[in-house]
Amino acid sequence: MARAMSTLGEVGEFGLIAAIALATRAGSGVEIGIGDDAALIVLPSGKALITTDMAIEGVHFRTDWSSAYEIGRKCAAANLADIAAMGGQTRALVVAFAAPASLSTEWALQLTQGINDECEGEGASVVGGDTVRGDAITISITAIGEVNDSVEKPITRGGAQVGDIVYLLGQTGASAAGLEILTRGMSSAPGLVALHKVPKPPYELAREFATFGATSMCDVSDGLAVDLAHIADASGVTIDIKLDAFDISDLQAAAEELEMDPIEWVLSGGEDHAFVGTLPAEQSPPPAARAIGVVCVRGDSAVTSAGVALRSHGHDHFSA
Amino acid sequence: MARAMSTLGEVGEFGLIAAIALATRAGSGVEIGIGDDAALIVLPSGKALITTDMAIEGVHFRTDWSSAYEIGRKCAAANLADIAAMGGQTRALVVAFAAPASLSTEWALQLTQGINDECEGEGASVVGGDTVRGDAITISITAIGEVNDSVEKPITRGGAQVGDIVYLLGQTGASAAGLEILTRGMSSAPGLVALHKVPKPPYELAREFATFGATSMCDVSDGLAVDLAHIADASGVTIDIKLDAFDISDLQAAAEELEMDPIEWVLSGGEDHAFVGTLPAEQSPPPAARAIGVVCVRGDSAVTSAGVALRSHGHDHFSA
Repeated sequence: MARAMSTLGEVGEFGLIAAIALATRAGSGVEIGIGDDAALIVLPSGKALITTDMAIEGVHFRTDWSSAYEIGRKCAAANLADIAAMGGQTRALVVAFAAPASLSTEWALQLTQGINDECEGEGASVVGGDTVRGDAITISITAIGEVNDSVEKPITRGGAQVGDIVYLLGQTGASAAGLEILTRGMSSAPGLVALHKVPKPPYELAREFATFGATSMCDVSDGLAVDLAHIADASGVTIDIKLDAFDISDLQAAAEELEMDPIEWVLSGGEDHAFVGTLPAEQSPPPAARAIGVVCVRGDSAVTSAGVALRSHGHDHFSA
Repeated sequence: MARAMSTLGEVGEFGLIAAIALATRAGSGVEIGIGDDAALIVLPSGKALITTDMAIEGVHFRTDWSSAYEIGRKCAAANLADIAAMGGQTRALVVAFAAPASLSTEWALQLTQGINDECEGEGASVVGGDTVRGDAITISITAIGEVNDSVEKPITRGGAQVGDIVYLLGQTGASAAGLEILTRGMSSAPGLVALHKVPKPPYELAREFATFGATSMCDVSDGLAVDLAHIADASGVTIDIKLDAFDISDLQAAAEELEMDPIEWVLSGGEDHAFVGTLPAEQSPPPAARAIGVVCVRGDSAVTSAGVALRSHGHDHFSA
């Protein structure tokens, strides 16, 4: 029914919720799903990891650059990555969604499909939400997850020890490069643009890293240099990184074309939702982890390269 | 530090988060609170109730009518009430917050204080959030709770049985009356206006009702008639209410002054966050519950009064 009606104003709040519920398969452990005052999910560990992430049209995404499906994938990924960064696995999402009444119902259902598909690989599902009227399309997702039995305890930002090796899981920079290409209205490097629209966080690798005895970990969402500083500050250490340790082969051609330094993308890129963390030096890492630095005694700066302070890169949400 | 800086743009995202963390006391059972990728809370029952509710400036609240503190109380209450409507108690909230960079930091901290104070009575606390830039102030809260041991199972909308008595817990109508007074720019009935700004959901009474063997319950958030229809539809029954069963004494004077029918406020009022539910006829209710109708065999209409269909009252978020 909902698909035949063209706008949210026509289908109405309850029509939209019914259509979303139809498009959404409740995952295992969901005792009460979409449609009541609250959902009920089973968490055998008796402990819930909780994170939330809000994205707003014109600030975090543009509907002329990304499809509703892509926006759904990316918004869900931001939340799933936060849970994985603790060594956890997401069980359920709730989605609060604001849009003007003139928005097409199909757009909202494509967004739903993107969220559902990103959840699928993690074994999570949407269990509830809220739909309201607003001038700007706004998507606010909360993820609830658990730390798997194979991980001793959640991995925080605060456990890095002097002498630990710093590892990058996944890559940063592709999303920042893709955004630059979109901003300039160019059509080059479709692979980088695609990774800006739909990041591919290595969720499973983050959990594997946790089982290897990670002393700290976080999702790279504010920019690699900024997120390394979060670990350094929370752990009371300085992190020294090697700028030649990164794999920039996928960025090189675009960087030359745009006359930019690829390492800037690597250090400022956050929307790739890679992970960064630390392991004791004597511990072999998962094969896919890339060593990018070491943990040092706290000095004047949170993050350095060859002992020299790295100037601040990354995103403050209230900056222009 | 944050209080000395006047706007969010000046204090920055991380300065705001630090100030919010300082103003927020982690409740019991919070193993990891504000400041990491995700929070970790203990849920001894192994089951999580989850609900989410989004409010947008100009749609759900006006900053010239309500203070930041009042808005915080009300936004938190909408979530706490959804958890209580299942017979549950909220353990933790996460708060996603969007605002322009020009917003005063003090406003954001007063909002935080309102949220914290509303949580206090329920034993809940804010454990995390997200702060982003947006043109309209947007507050998207997710609450995670548990069903207390004293309640056998969560109370859904779907369990009303023919012959059950329908009870209202708390009152509806005051918030709608208060809104009407504000809309007309009048200064009468400050008590009703205050209840529009900060509702007083009877959380404890909802949980007490659950322990009495409630067959169904929901939070009245869309309007009493609409929410009764939700129970009727989910349960496959018709609910017949007695229009003279309501206590309209607090509304009478304002209704006369505004030349309106107080029963319209009672039937359309949702923002009071009262509760409505059903008990078997042989079960005595909690003393504070008010019998307002009976559950009948499903007829043509979800909700009737003396057998006559009640015309639709209430709120569709995508209507103008």
